[in-house]
Amino acid sequence: MIIPKTSTRAITSPSGTADSMEVLAPVTFTSEEVEKMVSELNACIIWGGALDIAPADNVLIEVERPLHYDPWGLMIPSILAKKIAMGVNAGLVLDIPVGEGTKFSTPSRGKEFAHVFKQIASNFGVKAECALTLAHQPIGHAVGPAIEAKEALRLLLDYNVGPNSLIEKSTSLAGILLEMGGKAQRGEGQTLAKQILQSGNAYKKMRDIIELQGGDPDIQPDDIELGPYQKDFYSNKSGHITEVDNAIINQIAKAAGCPYAKTSGVEIYRKQGAKIEKGEKIFTIYSNSENKLRRARKIYNSTGGPIILGGMLIERI
Amino acid sequence: MIIPKTSTRAITSPSGTADSMEVLAPVTFTSEEVEKMVSELNACIIWGGALDIAPADNVLIEVERPLHYDPWGLMIPSILAKKIAMGVNAGLVLDIPVGEGTKFSTPSRGKEFAHVFKQIASNFGVKAECALTLAHQPIGHAVGPAIEAKEALRLLLDYNVGPNSLIEKSTSLAGILLEMGGKAQRGEGQTLAKQILQSGNAYKKMRDIIELQGGDPDIQPDDIELGPYQKDFYSNKSGHITEVDNAIINQIAKAAGCPYAKTSGVEIYRKQGAKIEKGEKIFTIYSNSENKLRRARKIYNSTGGPIILGGMLIERI
Repeated sequence: MIIPKTSTRAITSPSGTADSMEVLAPVTFTSEEVEKMVSELNACIIWGGALDIAPADNVLIEVERPLHYDPWGLMIPSILAKKIAMGVNAGLVLDIPVGEGTKFSTPSRGKEFAHVFKQIASNFGVKAECALTLAHQPIGHAVGPAIEAKEALRLLLDYNVGPNSLIEKSTSLAGILLEMGGKAQRGEGQTLAKQILQSGNAYKKMRDIIELQGGDPDIQPDDIELGPYQKDFYSNKSGHITEVDNAIINQIAKAAGCPYAKTSGVEIYRKQGAKIEKGEKIFTIYSNSENKLRRARKIYNSTGGPIILGGMLIERI
Repeated sequence: MIIPKTSTRAITSPSGTADSMEVLAPVTFTSEEVEKMVSELNACIIWGGALDIAPADNVLIEVERPLHYDPWGLMIPSILAKKIAMGVNAGLVLDIPVGEGTKFSTPSRGKEFAHVFKQIASNFGVKAECALTLAHQPIGHAVGPAIEAKEALRLLLDYNVGPNSLIEKSTSLAGILLEMGGKAQRGEGQTLAKQILQSGNAYKKMRDIIELQGGDPDIQPDDIELGPYQKDFYSNKSGHITEVDNAIINQIAKAAGCPYAKTSGVEIYRKQGAKIEKGEKIFTIYSNSENKLRRARKIYNSTGGPIILGGMLIERI
């Protein structure tokens, strides 16, 4: 299978795939360079925006970012234009994260989008499948370019460190691709994807990609620096986590400098359902600037933070 | 404070408050009896439908139940008529559970309802507050008349057994009432409610209510029988619980005989966020009939059960 992965930088979120990948290797290439890399390795993980394949899209994204607004009419052509230009038509898997504080707050809205997307894709001869995925809280424990790269690399090196949500999400998406590519029977793609991840083959492929794109293939999770300014937060009561609020996390991470400051980000130690003791460390903010850290702390303090404990009351009206 | 609590039997759910309370004491009284009880104890927990105070409502509910349908236009007069007839006007707290598989799938829908409800209540001179509460998964670990009564009684006897979600939800609602009744400053009602629960005073009051309504005040959680037909379910894999599906639980509990069969119900051992080992017991169905148990098991098996493990994929489209 050939997987020429183009990804975006963050538009309205604290980190896009391209922002995180850039921590491990350059992601900015010309079409000719990409063609050469893909013919050599059957894969790449690059920033789609640097290619000259969908120039209007970059302009639109630059308009959207300051507006924090990304409407369907721009989202769909933005995704499809780059994929079509990359020659993807045999199979495209679109991840549609669903949950409060994300683009699609309910599965029914996500579903609606999926059907529109599939229809438009098929008009252009692209066979697409959409995966609605759970995103009511962050995947894994990290938000921010460097910290997400660190978390992903750690998992690639050792399946047992998890996090479970990251394993499940990445292998369910990869599983659909494997099924569409004829490498696995319908319903067996995820199992195969997990084997590839667990066996270390996914890590080996990632090393090759990092090396070919000009990064250091020997990079270890501990080599990836965060901060240097950081602030830990501790729970001021005991209880169970009933909610981890994406919207507050995104606000804090952006205030801390994401996505432009790679080393800025947040770490969420415990998630929904976890039992927390008073005084337990639950959250850390990393920032490249003391001022930004101060701003991010202010948001944490004024909102009470993204980790909501025990309370069953959403709102009193 | 005088709290003359009228409650409903289940309309579209597996158990209403009146259904559970009836496991501990009779709930069917005439207006005269209720007046006498409330003047003696300042409290009661009765079935509103048995009173002759809102006769049209009973007819409407009987129409709604088989239709599994409870529209706003019936819900609001149904709630308000009984409260007004009971003389409640100083303060009414309405719990609005919000979450997939409940009447209000998103907070924004619940909020809309809250504003309409408050407006109509105030037209009738009733001071109402609405509490949007988390209901994306069951509160506590029990669904069904007897098993919910058992769980509530256990908590009343010992604060430390929890469950946390039940403590949090009940005390946040009680806290609003205490604040509206002038017993606590704004923002301090829940703390007071927790003290009342923890000190055993809530249990003492419950004993008085049970006794006055004709039940056995010495009843212990272990006296409350379930089943007798039951079936345990074990996890067929390891992972984290990402979702506990209300809709499937309700289907199973109703198939098992709820709300008419008091001893029917389900027990959910672990909830969202919990880490589960393969082979761990996660769910039990109780039923008063072997046939109903068989039907409930079929729903568990065909849906895969309400406890969804690990998967981050909601749907593939």
